[in-house]
Amino acid sequence: MTDEENGEWNFASDNVAPVAPEIMAAIVESNSGSVSSYGSDPWSAKLTARLREVFETDLVAYPVATGTAANALALSVITPSYGSIICAQDAHINTDECGAPEFYTAGAKLIGLPSTDGKMSVDLLEKTIAQKRTEGLQTAQPHAVSITQSTEWGVVYDTAHITAISGIAAANDISLHMDGARFANGLVRLGCSPAEMTWKAGVDALSFGATKNGAMAAEMVIIFDRGRTGGLAARHKRAGHLWSKARFLSAQLIAYLENDLWLRNAATSNAMAQRLARGLSGIAGVHLIHPVQANQVFATMPQAAIDAITTARFRFAQWTRGPLGEGALLRFVTSYSTTQSAVDALISCTKAAMIANGTVAGIKFEAI
Amino acid sequence: MTDEENGEWNFASDNVAPVAPEIMAAIVESNSGSVSSYGSDPWSAKLTARLREVFETDLVAYPVATGTAANALALSVITPSYGSIICAQDAHINTDECGAPEFYTAGAKLIGLPSTDGKMSVDLLEKTIAQKRTEGLQTAQPHAVSITQSTEWGVVYDTAHITAISGIAAANDISLHMDGARFANGLVRLGCSPAEMTWKAGVDALSFGATKNGAMAAEMVIIFDRGRTGGLAARHKRAGHLWSKARFLSAQLIAYLENDLWLRNAATSNAMAQRLARGLSGIAGVHLIHPVQANQVFATMPQAAIDAITTARFRFAQWTRGPLGEGALLRFVTSYSTTQSAVDALISCTKAAMIANGTVAGIKFEAI
Amino acid sequence: MTDEENGEWNFASDNVAPVAPEIMAAIVESNSGSVSSYGSDPWSAKLTARLREVFETDLVAYPVATGTAANALALSVITPSYGSIICAQDAHINTDECGAPEFYTAGAKLIGLPSTDGKMSVDLLEKTIAQKRTEGLQTAQPHAVSITQSTEWGVVYDTAHITAISGIAAANDISLHMDGARFANGLVRLGCSPAEMTWKAGVDALSFGATKNGAMAAEMVIIFDRGRTGGLAARHKRAGHLWSKARFLSAQLIAYLENDLWLRNAATSNAMAQRLARGLSGIAGVHLIHPVQANQVFATMPQAAIDAITTARFRFAQWTRGPLGEGALLRFVTSYSTTQSAVDALISCTKAAMIANGTVAGIKFEAI
Amino acid sequence: MTDEENGEWNFASDNVAPVAPEIMAAIVESNSGSVSSYGSDPWSAKLTARLREVFETDLVAYPVATGTAANALALSVITPSYGSIICAQDAHINTDECGAPEFYTAGAKLIGLPSTDGKMSVDLLEKTIAQKRTEGLQTAQPHAVSITQSTEWGVVYDTAHITAISGIAAANDISLHMDGARFANGLVRLGCSPAEMTWKAGVDALSFGATKNGAMAAEMVIIFDRGRTGGLAARHKRAGHLWSKARFLSAQLIAYLENDLWLRNAATSNAMAQRLARGLSGIAGVHLIHPVQANQVFATMPQAAIDAITTARFRFAQWTRGPLGEGALLRFVTSYSTTQSAVDALISCTKAAMIANGTVAGIKFEAI
Repeated sequence: MTDEENGEWNFASDNVAPVAPEIMAAIVESNSGSVSSYGSDPWSAKLTARLREVFETDLVAYPVATGTAANALALSVITPSYGSIICAQDAHINTDECGAPEFYTAGAKLIGLPSTDGKMSVDLLEKTIAQKRTEGLQTAQPHAVSITQSTEWGVVYDTAHITAISGIAAANDISLHMDGARFANGLVRLGCSPAEMTWKAGVDALSFGATKNGAMAAEMVIIFDRGRTGGLAARHKRAGHLWSKARFLSAQLIAYLENDLWLRNAATSNAMAQRLARGLSGIAGVHLIHPVQANQVFATMPQAAIDAITTARFRFAQWTRGPLGEGALLRFVTSYSTTQSAVDALISCTKAAMIANGTVAGIKFEAI
Repeated sequence: MTDEENGEWNFASDNVAPVAPEIMAAIVESNSGSVSSYGSDPWSAKLTARLREVFETDLVAYPVATGTAANALALSVITPSYGSIICAQDAHINTDECGAPEFYTAGAKLIGLPSTDGKMSVDLLEKTIAQKRTEGLQTAQPHAVSITQSTEWGVVYDTAHITAISGIAAANDISLHMDGARFANGLVRLGCSPAEMTWKAGVDALSFGATKNGAMAAEMVIIFDRGRTGGLAARHKRAGHLWSKARFLSAQLIAYLENDLWLRNAATSNAMAQRLARGLSGIAGVHLIHPVQANQVFATMPQAAIDAITTARFRFAQWTRGPLGEGALLRFVTSYSTTQSAVDALISCTKAAMIANGTVAGIKFEAI
Repeated sequence: MTDEENGEWNFASDNVAPVAPEIMAAIVESNSGSVSSYGSDPWSAKLTARLREVFETDLVAYPVATGTAANALALSVITPSYGSIICAQDAHINTDECGAPEFYTAGAKLIGLPSTDGKMSVDLLEKTIAQKRTEGLQTAQPHAVSITQSTEWGVVYDTAHITAISGIAAANDISLHMDGARFANGLVRLGCSPAEMTWKAGVDALSFGATKNGAMAAEMVIIFDRGRTGGLAARHKRAGHLWSKARFLSAQLIAYLENDLWLRNAATSNAMAQRLARGLSGIAGVHLIHPVQANQVFATMPQAAIDAITTARFRFAQWTRGPLGEGALLRFVTSYSTTQSAVDALISCTKAAMIANGTVAGIKFEAI
Repeated sequence: MTDEENGEWNFASDNVAPVAPEIMAAIVESNSGSVSSYGSDPWSAKLTARLREVFETDLVAYPVATGTAANALALSVITPSYGSIICAQDAHINTDECGAPEFYTAGAKLIGLPSTDGKMSVDLLEKTIAQKRTEGLQTAQPHAVSITQSTEWGVVYDTAHITAISGIAAANDISLHMDGARFANGLVRLGCSPAEMTWKAGVDALSFGATKNGAMAAEMVIIFDRGRTGGLAARHKRAGHLWSKARFLSAQLIAYLENDLWLRNAATSNAMAQRLARGLSGIAGVHLIHPVQANQVFATMPQAAIDAITTARFRFAQWTRGPLGEGALLRFVTSYSTTQSAVDALISCTKAAMIANGTVAGIKFEAI
């Protein structure tokens, strides 16, 4: 019934993975007896305390089940209905959430900037804000900037870059949101502290993801400035994201943060992506498209290789429209549950296809 | 850490209860291997098939984690932004969801009618619609009627009543929504089929609750007319209610419907409420306020009794503002996990308090 | 083609009246040559300056063509989407604007309080806020109170009453809005200054009406605290209420405020209402329903009188549903253009009907 | 006080012009006696009848005071909150209305396509829709296409182009909106009938502009299919665009359509633009940027020319950011009130500057 039972190896996304055993255990363990509902339970209290430790600051956090909810709620707190949100053109909030930010903000406009590997250019951000300011009332004025860490293309902002962006934003009285659906993957890559990657770098609002890194369905909206959380509690409730049995959201997140599970999981998935990237990059005809810094590998490969891995039931995502062939951009995502053997099998299969195909020089593969 | 560990008996709500063991087992069992995300998994497919059997009709269903989400989404499908929704004044959608229907419909207006035990008067409904129709453009015209089964006051509409309401609605080109947060409790009370209590009685959109009856966080928006689900898929997605790991919502609901678990759970909680009602009604000074037909008991009791049960760590909800005393309306909710011994202990404690209090005639209690 | 040409006397509303000659002259006069658009014209600048004189304070004002726009915009500035607005049950914003406040606020909830003559009870306001505060997240918390001056029932708040309401509001961090569709009628009645009736009494946001008192289509949203106008300019623009040829809105309002035209017009319409009330109150069988303090007269009268004035082509509004007869509540509105002879004719016709009817004692009418 | 009194010639926009004398006369004339309010007056009835003649079909029309309101209302009828609207990148709805479509639709997304002279490519439209369809739920699906006639760059779609666009739209169950802020200018250019340029070419919803062509503040939302006007009356009312003294909107539009005033006015402004374009195109160093087909002329010119016309108090719009110099894109708009002498003066002034400047060869100007 699952992919593995079907003989498949699933690299299509990190959200095809099951729940990490530690988190499932925590859910089961929290299921004893009655507790107060709507967040007045012991788990929810503990979670908030734990978050303050992890981020080394006071903060306000609301758990939700999806990243779309976290992003849309966070943006609705910092963007009025008549404002706009500057993001990378390929940002998940702009392309994959079916207009969630527009819904939650009651009609704010997203301004998508061309980007490199999903990273926003500081210079272009500055120019865009300046241009918008001259347009005055004619246009929805920017009130928020949103960046994704790690980006939709598997690349990681360094803290200097984030700080530069937040500097431009702050100078224009604009708030900075970070879509952290793959927050831990970025954090592990940088090796810095959660504080350094967020509020110390000028992030005002954070979508803190856990689902893609082992949770069942758990993310958080985190606002670092307690004076600017206006309405978040009410927005969270009226959007239908306040669970009555809230302990089951909080328990996931506590387990996620316990014993560095989140960091260990992210380290695993990052390492698997590195291994895959190294393996694929050695194969003639296979081209990696973006630097591999987190847990996503984007590549193009010859038809023969695509056919081979498809036949061998490796699952991946086609990231461009049109026929699944030579020009198609393929996405391979690793997760905490991706095994070394699965990665190696994928690499071997690709390599074998290219050798069999005869288009690859023999020399290159002699050593294999 | 839980209430029981604290020596408490929690009658405050049915959502203080843990997850039913069968449902937790299903969650754990579904956690093996990778599966496609966003509802393209085997569990989600199975759930839809199962629902069509249960309701004996084709239908469209979207799972969500909260009742507020289910209600607001359902209402947004049948009510345009410029419309209004007629409901009982005390309806959960009107008083307890922080404006969720207004948010999801982008500004529709709720019209709360005075009701008896939370049940809408057919006559008053008809008069209200007629009045609104004469007001024309000045007012937001009714496009939906929403009823709660079982009601917020623990009472159950019979199918004739629902049919009468839907008749008035349909005659005025108005859709009928049922808030079924406690759907199973009503169904078990009536002893009819799910079809008879819904689409056969003219219900167009249903919020099908499971959380209060044993699920972790699982409800469904169900639309019976496939031709009128316009936008529900997109609304569900952009509101952030489409789980990436959707199997864990579907698995809950499959287990809920399996082997009549939902009906057995509701039968238990209804029976416990009956037992509690019978017990309390025999105590002088204690007054039951609404007929007890589902799993909620509303009562007033003398100060001595209130003090006694509070001291004995029974938890309940005070349903009126002001001091917790003689006039206060108290709510006791039973759930699938409420035990007979807990109910009996609550009754005994109340009784004992009244005897000790001396304000009750000795004769009445001699027989006890 | 007009009512008068049809031999009718129109008391149905004050907005059936034509534009006051002084205002039409100003429109025509402003129609010479080219000027900058979107409010950068000399008239718009002059208007703002004039308003600051009239209200003896700094303020921000945006002209719009309708009262609904003024109310909805004003409320959207002071009420977040997740908030609620407390008003009298019969407030125009609650009953006659087809959900405009809900639309502009993106889903705020209106809480209509029972009122006397449309005036909000200070005590009930205080109790309602207290009740809402205890309900917490379950309900949309009040962020605004809205009162109508003069009220929908033709009654005028005195400044002490307004101050008492604003005191309660301010103590709860709630803003006060005044719907001044018939602002001048209230002002003339009180004989105080515009400042005394508004910001000095604690009003934060004002809908300043002119259309019902002689303008073509001109009202203003006025915010007294410049620090709290956040987004009004953008809201005004994106709602489509910023005229390109803005001079024609501003010219109306300048003329309205020039030479006390607004006060003279309101004095006339108030006086005509008084005259009508006095006349009708002397007729047996005719009952005035609300105190007549501005320019509206509400009455019930016997069938014979209703038939007579209808036949004589007096036009008025029936304010209750059902047959137009003995029990029906009738509304007669006077305006700046209502003539003494029209009022006297209406009184005479009513009287004559009652005498002819024979149900009225002869003695009463002998002296007339 | 006006530009002319200041010695200025204003080419900045067509909305700097005064009201056409015929329209002002109609406003004044309609100002006699009382008439029913909110559109139940004789003028409003006559307008609807007249429109049906002009467009040779049944239709539903609502007058509003601004083009932003017309566009946003029209789009809100054909686009659900969860949908998207495809338009040219430079469309007024996308760049100049401060998010009005997003507000009125409650969060629909605008998809701006690169265009030539503001005209949408049929091919790119088709590809965009196909791409969006493959993205499924991830993205807000297109429900509307919006084109501007004449375009923001002063160019006119021919009817075959419109028909091709509507064909693609209809094949995808998408509605077509036309922003006709400068409708008459396009119509006069094409020389076809209003029906041919709209519903016969597949236009579903039209914003019919009059303000830029001589009205005070009058546009219309027109829906050609009476079965698809769902909610327009209510949307119009709740947005605050239903005037109580509606006769003054209707009277403008009746006069506009009477005796071909609208066509004559547009013919004048188009002719003045042609004259200006011809004149400027003969001057070395001056470059016309877009074809001149309606009443807008876009040009770049040398610094000396810019300085000269600025000094001579010709007013125009700078359409690009940065210093007002050689590279700057200038917009000159003519209107029904633009005189031949003003156009000739502008041409002469530009020419003279270039001759004086010495950078232009003497020969070129000898013949003039």
